[in-house]
Amino acid sequence: MVSFESDYIAGAHPEILRRLTETNLEALTGYGADFYSERAKEKIKKVCGCPEAEVEFLVGGTQTNSVVISSMLKDYEGVIAARTGHVSTHEAGAIEFTGHKVLEIPHTDGKIAPDTLKNYIDDFYADGNHEHMVFPGMVYISYPTEYGTLYTKKELKELSAVCRFRHIPLFVDGARLGYGLMSPDCDLTLPELAELADVFYIGGTKVGALCGEAVVFTKQNKPCHFLTSVKRRGALLAKGRLLGIQFDTLFSDDLYFEISRHAIKMAEALKKLFHEQGMHFYLESPTNQQFIILENGQMERLKERVAFSFWEKYDDSHTVVRFATSWSTRKEDLAALKEALEML
Amino acid sequence: MVSFESDYIAGAHPEILRRLTETNLEALTGYGADFYSERAKEKIKKVCGCPEAEVEFLVGGTQTNSVVISSMLKDYEGVIAARTGHVSTHEAGAIEFTGHKVLEIPHTDGKIAPDTLKNYIDDFYADGNHEHMVFPGMVYISYPTEYGTLYTKKELKELSAVCRFRHIPLFVDGARLGYGLMSPDCDLTLPELAELADVFYIGGTKVGALCGEAVVFTKQNKPCHFLTSVKRRGALLAKGRLLGIQFDTLFSDDLYFEISRHAIKMAEALKKLFHEQGMHFYLESPTNQQFIILENGQMERLKERVAFSFWEKYDDSHTVVRFATSWSTRKEDLAALKEALEML
Amino acid sequence: MVSFESDYIAGAHPEILRRLTETNLEALTGYGADFYSERAKEKIKKVCGCPEAEVEFLVGGTQTNSVVISSMLKDYEGVIAARTGHVSTHEAGAIEFTGHKVLEIPHTDGKIAPDTLKNYIDDFYADGNHEHMVFPGMVYISYPTEYGTLYTKKELKELSAVCRFRHIPLFVDGARLGYGLMSPDCDLTLPELAELADVFYIGGTKVGALCGEAVVFTKQNKPCHFLTSVKRRGALLAKGRLLGIQFDTLFSDDLYFEISRHAIKMAEALKKLFHEQGMHFYLESPTNQQFIILENGQMERLKERVAFSFWEKYDDSHTVVRFATSWSTRKEDLAALKEALEML
Amino acid sequence: MVSFESDYIAGAHPEILRRLTETNLEALTGYGADFYSERAKEKIKKVCGCPEAEVEFLVGGTQTNSVVISSMLKDYEGVIAARTGHVSTHEAGAIEFTGHKVLEIPHTDGKIAPDTLKNYIDDFYADGNHEHMVFPGMVYISYPTEYGTLYTKKELKELSAVCRFRHIPLFVDGARLGYGLMSPDCDLTLPELAELADVFYIGGTKVGALCGEAVVFTKQNKPCHFLTSVKRRGALLAKGRLLGIQFDTLFSDDLYFEISRHAIKMAEALKKLFHEQGMHFYLESPTNQQFIILENGQMERLKERVAFSFWEKYDDSHTVVRFATSWSTRKEDLAALKEALEML
Repeated sequence: MVSFESDYIAGAHPEILRRLTETNLEALTGYGADFYSERAKEKIKKVCGCPEAEVEFLVGGTQTNSVVISSMLKDYEGVIAARTGHVSTHEAGAIEFTGHKVLEIPHTDGKIAPDTLKNYIDDFYADGNHEHMVFPGMVYISYPTEYGTLYTKKELKELSAVCRFRHIPLFVDGARLGYGLMSPDCDLTLPELAELADVFYIGGTKVGALCGEAVVFTKQNKPCHFLTSVKRRGALLAKGRLLGIQFDTLFSDDLYFEISRHAIKMAEALKKLFHEQGMHFYLESPTNQQFIILENGQMERLKERVAFSFWEKYDDSHTVVRFATSWSTRKEDLAALKEALEML
Repeated sequence: MVSFESDYIAGAHPEILRRLTETNLEALTGYGADFYSERAKEKIKKVCGCPEAEVEFLVGGTQTNSVVISSMLKDYEGVIAARTGHVSTHEAGAIEFTGHKVLEIPHTDGKIAPDTLKNYIDDFYADGNHEHMVFPGMVYISYPTEYGTLYTKKELKELSAVCRFRHIPLFVDGARLGYGLMSPDCDLTLPELAELADVFYIGGTKVGALCGEAVVFTKQNKPCHFLTSVKRRGALLAKGRLLGIQFDTLFSDDLYFEISRHAIKMAEALKKLFHEQGMHFYLESPTNQQFIILENGQMERLKERVAFSFWEKYDDSHTVVRFATSWSTRKEDLAALKEALEML
Repeated sequence: MVSFESDYIAGAHPEILRRLTETNLEALTGYGADFYSERAKEKIKKVCGCPEAEVEFLVGGTQTNSVVISSMLKDYEGVIAARTGHVSTHEAGAIEFTGHKVLEIPHTDGKIAPDTLKNYIDDFYADGNHEHMVFPGMVYISYPTEYGTLYTKKELKELSAVCRFRHIPLFVDGARLGYGLMSPDCDLTLPELAELADVFYIGGTKVGALCGEAVVFTKQNKPCHFLTSVKRRGALLAKGRLLGIQFDTLFSDDLYFEISRHAIKMAEALKKLFHEQGMHFYLESPTNQQFIILENGQMERLKERVAFSFWEKYDDSHTVVRFATSWSTRKEDLAALKEALEML
Repeated sequence: MVSFESDYIAGAHPEILRRLTETNLEALTGYGADFYSERAKEKIKKVCGCPEAEVEFLVGGTQTNSVVISSMLKDYEGVIAARTGHVSTHEAGAIEFTGHKVLEIPHTDGKIAPDTLKNYIDDFYADGNHEHMVFPGMVYISYPTEYGTLYTKKELKELSAVCRFRHIPLFVDGARLGYGLMSPDCDLTLPELAELADVFYIGGTKVGALCGEAVVFTKQNKPCHFLTSVKRRGALLAKGRLLGIQFDTLFSDDLYFEISRHAIKMAEALKKLFHEQGMHFYLESPTNQQFIILENGQMERLKERVAFSFWEKYDDSHTVVRFATSWSTRKEDLAALKEALEML
């Protein structure tokens, strides 16, 4: 059955598997100290236009959020996030597991407004009692957000300015970064992101890799003895090559951006299909995730021919569902979806 | 340069890469709920002779130790381990990171004597003050140990008996399990291990996989909502297929045992080479890791032609070094080593 | 200067100091195993009408919240609290420090509506993705709330029913319990509270003691080896007598209730003073804390003669301030306040 | 029955209760910002000869160890302690609860030899694998030790030198500091201790207070926002006056030293009694704790007339028991002990 369930339903981009196979029997040092990891880091620093950056590879998104946030926060600090942020809702409390609070603030379609952030922090410091409260020690945003929306360059600049004024880092969860950067609505370049963020990551898992996220510390701010901090969180991969080779491949010949672009093209086509059928969007995003409102009977019938994912109840007779495209979405998949929609 | 540096210097057994490639574009559900993960679990339960077992896949060894130990211990408990246990020394405090103490006890060549264990726990409960101390809540051993040594079946039975008398689980770190089970000195079968241990894992990372450890809860004792506990520790892989397909392959056609057997054969040949050169063993193990005492000048010269790893200082003019074989060790590697040793 | 800054500005009720002095040189066993602690526990069980209760003494409120919540939650659970709950806002992340999330939900004047609670938990279990989320494992409410408001018996019954249906404990923070129970608006007895709550505490610090909170586990649900859990959180007092003697005194001759009643009487008189001056209440509570809106100039002038506490900015020219009465408030204090108000 | 069970069997020195009573109804600001706490801090800085010191009050010993150690260690660090250290054995894993490992090293009669420390740290940094290990980030010693023994000034200087060479703080647990400083064997002054230690505490609980430990950060090294770190560990006392007034009293008129001196005088007399009866010492300490070997029958008979504490089994027919004197030990207690010993 054709599936738009998520952007991690397939394995890896074939080029990645080809490279893993090609290098398979080379004897390499473990724990990320191998040649391919080194080369991948250099490529990433270059594409970020940030030669002073420090790059580290981790395995998955929740792990990356947890390791980065908990190793950068001070004892008495928490991390500010949108109430819909992945760290707030769908990571089973991974940040709290490390002892730190997620300070949840209001959002619009998954985005934190710069003013909301500024007021929150201002109010904190204005409160005479704030020594009894969790200090805001970092700001977490996702690009694209959990709703597929994008911050404008202007918004990012303002968020970044608030953070710098308060001397706290701005952390960008880029689990789907490629799909953001390649969106027609994106007015931001990767080097601009690297300049505005203090730390961010380039998602591999959802953008062509078997697993892997590349963390970029942009301001010479990688925590001291980071490898040890990674190890004690159970996040250090013995065969670091698995991450190094994948990112080395993704950042060769523009592959990461090319496959991201493809997913966006597929998303645009998918949106068109829904519009053609007169279906209602809960949120029509400029990236690879689309949120559609289906009448419940319709949903049940569609489910028999196409896989997608439940998002939330809309009302008693309707449901919000999510369709995701990815690097692995094919034209044939869209054709099958079109047919299924026409048969509803 | 030929390398005996560790048992994770190469990628994966070629059959694993072949299967990853073959299944690459199949659309599969994430987080371990895919067909291959399910099938691999069934195969493992079968080979363990333990149909009631519950199997879960995790990414690496330290992560597995940390997740299993911290999700099974009660609030007021710690885990007993040999002072040389991997959890005691080389995991950067990953157990303590989860809030629990490693209760370190004496060992012989990496092994805990059943009497040492019994006395430790007896003394704990005899101490009138024990409510002020960390309760022993689990026993951690490794098979083979960090020194490549093996517990006899009798020793394991006795350790297991102590644990059952005290109603605490016996946890066996099997990061190199295959190399233990296939050792000529092993008097234990996998089903016997499954019977004696309450939880153990079958190491993939060091035995042919790119990554992955298969945890086996043998007594219907998997912690409730284990997936959530895994997630909040940042240890849940989105593309669970990566683990499922690898273990499905390793437990097809006896592959796991066949490649383990090969590593042991290579280790036996390697030991012979050192003996032929009249070199001294610090510890000649029955498994895939050998500890040799080299005169420092000798060590420096050998280093130029062969990679191996530093273990510890022996005396002012000698050093203990480790040579490891693995599923990927080739006859040519041994020939190169032989030549290098003869030239010393 | 006369002070209404908080309900912990004075030392202890004189009778407590008298008893501490009287028993001072008796040789008593440490860590709460003394005669007075035992007797105090019996008295508390009796006044709660709950002979099967288990009572434990801790030092302060944040400590009690942290110890009780973290020792009762399971690994994968968090605690539900009002967004204004003390554990959510003013304990510097003490719950998160223990690894658990505070699941913040909406409130009205500090109270959680039973329906809000029910819907939150229903939605959690309806979410197909909930294994990736923090499980609701406890409900925390305060009585009186941080705004001095009180749940009705009916509301408490409904909250309790939701908890029981979901098999999660209802925990009542009673840091100011006496001031709630003695309020004219209270329609609840202590035995009724003990029946509806699974665990609650009787605040000492704010109701006449130097320090101390008495935790009551009402359903034979005290965590196993609780003393050890208390110790490892650094919360076990060597001289447990300090807590035992204080609670023994507070629960002799109805003292706890008598001094609570006095504070409420003083609060009623205080409210009358503000009304007489035509001042505006932000929230006129039925307990010992009153929230008044002052024009900023007024506030500055009043500050010179009376101590009170800043609560929050109301608008550009007004501020919300808090006046608290307690067991130690005297008629003379009110007279001085009256005079100060009249001079504004 | 006369008791030598511990040094916390009595309440507080009468002068402390007198002062608590005298100041009882003064309205004071909470959380340690009161006048008495401030004055006590100044007195302590003066008596330590360390005007740049920062002093903070906490409630008990385990809490102090846990708060100080966990707020000073970096993410990747643990604390070195003797295998017999209180933090290693009798605090129920309070350090590990905060996520950090206690790195246990060998001892002699409770003391760490400077060479043992130096070698341990040297070996750590010499190990090529040390990034996979817990970094030594602090050294914890107790003065007097858990066995009542004392470091010489020379030993302390050497331990301090090792720490400074490695840029890690030396932390001295002074739960019984007075009994150490007033011992005839002590060749150290309090200002010298303040100079050699980076942080230490002056125990109140065991030296005349109801509760309370005064932490002294001697090198302008108090962790940033320490109050918030204390609060999130549930260790901040609302009525900080309880600690402030006690320490203000203890450091008035030389009281702390006078009552410590008394306890030592009593201990010397107690030792004489045992010698007169020809009894065997397991460890005859220069401070207030004495460890005696009793034949088991003897022990049972003595128990009927005198309270003391079990330490450990000596052999099948003998037991090591502990007798402690304190500020509250009276001549009559010794007379009763003498009589009981003579009747054995």
